[in-house]
Amino acid sequence: MKALGRHYRTIWLNADGRSVDVIDQRWLPHEFRVETIRSVDTMATAIRDMWVRGAPLIGVAAAYGMALQTAVDASDAALERAAEQLHATRPTAINLRWALDEMLLVLLPTKASERMQLAYRRAAEIADEDVEIDRNIGRNGLTMIQLLARKKPDGAPVNILTHCNAGWLATVDYGTATSPIYLAAQEGLNIHVYVDETRPRNQGAQLTAWELGQQGIPHTLIVDNAGGHLMQKGMVDIVIVGTDRTAANGDVCNKIGTYLKALAAYDNHVPFYVALPSSSIDWNLPDGRSIPIEQRGGDEVSYVWGRGKDGKIDKVRISPDETNAANYAFDVTPARLVTGLITERGVCAASAAGLRGLFAERAAE
Amino acid sequence: MKALGRHYRTIWLNADGRSVDVIDQRWLPHEFRVETIRSVDTMATAIRDMWVRGAPLIGVAAAYGMALQTAVDASDAALERAAEQLHATRPTAINLRWALDEMLLVLLPTKASERMQLAYRRAAEIADEDVEIDRNIGRNGLTMIQLLARKKPDGAPVNILTHCNAGWLATVDYGTATSPIYLAAQEGLNIHVYVDETRPRNQGAQLTAWELGQQGIPHTLIVDNAGGHLMQKGMVDIVIVGTDRTAANGDVCNKIGTYLKALAAYDNHVPFYVALPSSSIDWNLPDGRSIPIEQRGGDEVSYVWGRGKDGKIDKVRISPDETNAANYAFDVTPARLVTGLITERGVCAASAAGLRGLFAERAAE
Repeated sequence: MKALGRHYRTIWLNADGRSVDVIDQRWLPHEFRVETIRSVDTMATAIRDMWVRGAPLIGVAAAYGMALQTAVDASDAALERAAEQLHATRPTAINLRWALDEMLLVLLPTKASERMQLAYRRAAEIADEDVEIDRNIGRNGLTMIQLLARKKPDGAPVNILTHCNAGWLATVDYGTATSPIYLAAQEGLNIHVYVDETRPRNQGAQLTAWELGQQGIPHTLIVDNAGGHLMQKGMVDIVIVGTDRTAANGDVCNKIGTYLKALAAYDNHVPFYVALPSSSIDWNLPDGRSIPIEQRGGDEVSYVWGRGKDGKIDKVRISPDETNAANYAFDVTPARLVTGLITERGVCAASAAGLRGLFAERAAE
Repeated sequence: MKALGRHYRTIWLNADGRSVDVIDQRWLPHEFRVETIRSVDTMATAIRDMWVRGAPLIGVAAAYGMALQTAVDASDAALERAAEQLHATRPTAINLRWALDEMLLVLLPTKASERMQLAYRRAAEIADEDVEIDRNIGRNGLTMIQLLARKKPDGAPVNILTHCNAGWLATVDYGTATSPIYLAAQEGLNIHVYVDETRPRNQGAQLTAWELGQQGIPHTLIVDNAGGHLMQKGMVDIVIVGTDRTAANGDVCNKIGTYLKALAAYDNHVPFYVALPSSSIDWNLPDGRSIPIEQRGGDEVSYVWGRGKDGKIDKVRISPDETNAANYAFDVTPARLVTGLITERGVCAASAAGLRGLFAERAAE
């Protein structure tokens, strides 16, 4: 998508054929910085410290992390250690495990001397596949927005609410929840997006608002508390969010607070869609209740980062020094609250039967 | 309640019998400041700019504002103008209107020369009545916490979740939602409070956490997104919040985000109680749908205030400069989601019948 007026992906291989560049998302929306990553250690840091984030993107980043490892030591032991190291960075996202398994599956049966070339090729394919998947998610989700637009009097905007950043910046390009939005804008539909700020890390305020602004899409920032009120007042036509892990029954594990928005959407008959690449589906997980929920440091709650008066990125403490904070990063939205799942193959009901209809070969495993 | 180890109310008459001191809540939790207010203009500023906030406290503040006016010009025209000026500061809270009407009712039939003495007496009474009301709310709510404590194995803590600040700082003393909590602590019950930070103004992080800390009550700060997850995991035994206006059918208008917590409580069979003085009941309002919802400036969303590295109160911008924000201050929680209303007379169902049972004389009006 566009940043500063030109096209970017969030991660790309440099001309040296070895080092990998990423948009360092820690400085957005205040500064646009690109970091060059030359080792698996740095890639692990980039994932853990959220220079890159978003389930699909960290899968691709991990794949390139494995490729960086092959350039140093491509032995079985080194690759397995690297996979372990990369997996430990973020325990909740299923794509991370998926991408690492995919790389090991390709690399381990191959001669060590051929692994480097193969690893870079497979990582590039995973990135390209991600872009293609997201474009298809966009096409499938677009039909819902077109339907809503047709019902609007006088071309009034379709109001879409989203939570966190399941955007371009969470993937390689297009995004998942944002892909239907970007395609709708390309089609010339009149749309407007309510962006949840998404405390504690404010991915909505910092990333989604920035992304939408860079593409020129009308949007309004709201606090996470406001979505229910907007839905009560008929100001939201559709909710589209992403997911970090989807259970085989359609339960959805996404950024903390998603469940609350799903409850409000259900209570107000607002369609609630989850956009996802099928790589986020955990076919072995019967439902979402047992998904491990990442707990992060309380300082993400007690401090808020932003741009200070002097223009520099800074933080302020919002609570008393003596007050401790708990920081659960995700919650699980039960399938009963989800109107549908938007996948690269089509839109389906959030249920085992719905998923089976689109992914018969996986559901049968 | 206690602040810095000694007892304070949030508002009090000075020894000069004329000027009024308030705790200036804009600097909490980082600084404890007291402001002396000498005119109705300053009192209007104090209410509008939220040096004092919370429905019951702004009622008392407005009453003292009228008293300050009588000391300058106690004519009918001057009093009516002062009431108009004070009412315009915060349109949503019903207590403000109630306190101003109460003052006019007492003052207008009286000779202008006697109005000043009468005004200060009535304002002091309203403050004392508020304390008594809150103490009774506490006693009535305490029974629920005692009940939950009795069911806990091995004296494990009763976990209470609250939103915004319906605390001591929102009233003259005790608070509404916090009053049962303070009385439970005084009784020696083992309690723990989850405090919603309450964006955009962070009254939970800044005020409720500070209040609880000053009384030595165990508490944990969470983002507004987290309550649903905690309830899904059985980590919340009861939710107690306040209200700015209560409709005659038990619909509750409270800080934005309350509705989302009520939905989650309902979905997880967690009791959801609203603590309120009967002055917050708008008997003429059949339900909550038509309550005017205050819209505040978007900068409260785009910027976050806190204590910077240099120890000074400062703000950071969290969103792109080009992104606009919407800022709805309240939402309405339908009575069907409310387990009960905790009032100064007792606990009742959130319904017209429930309220009629406790306040037969008002419901009959």
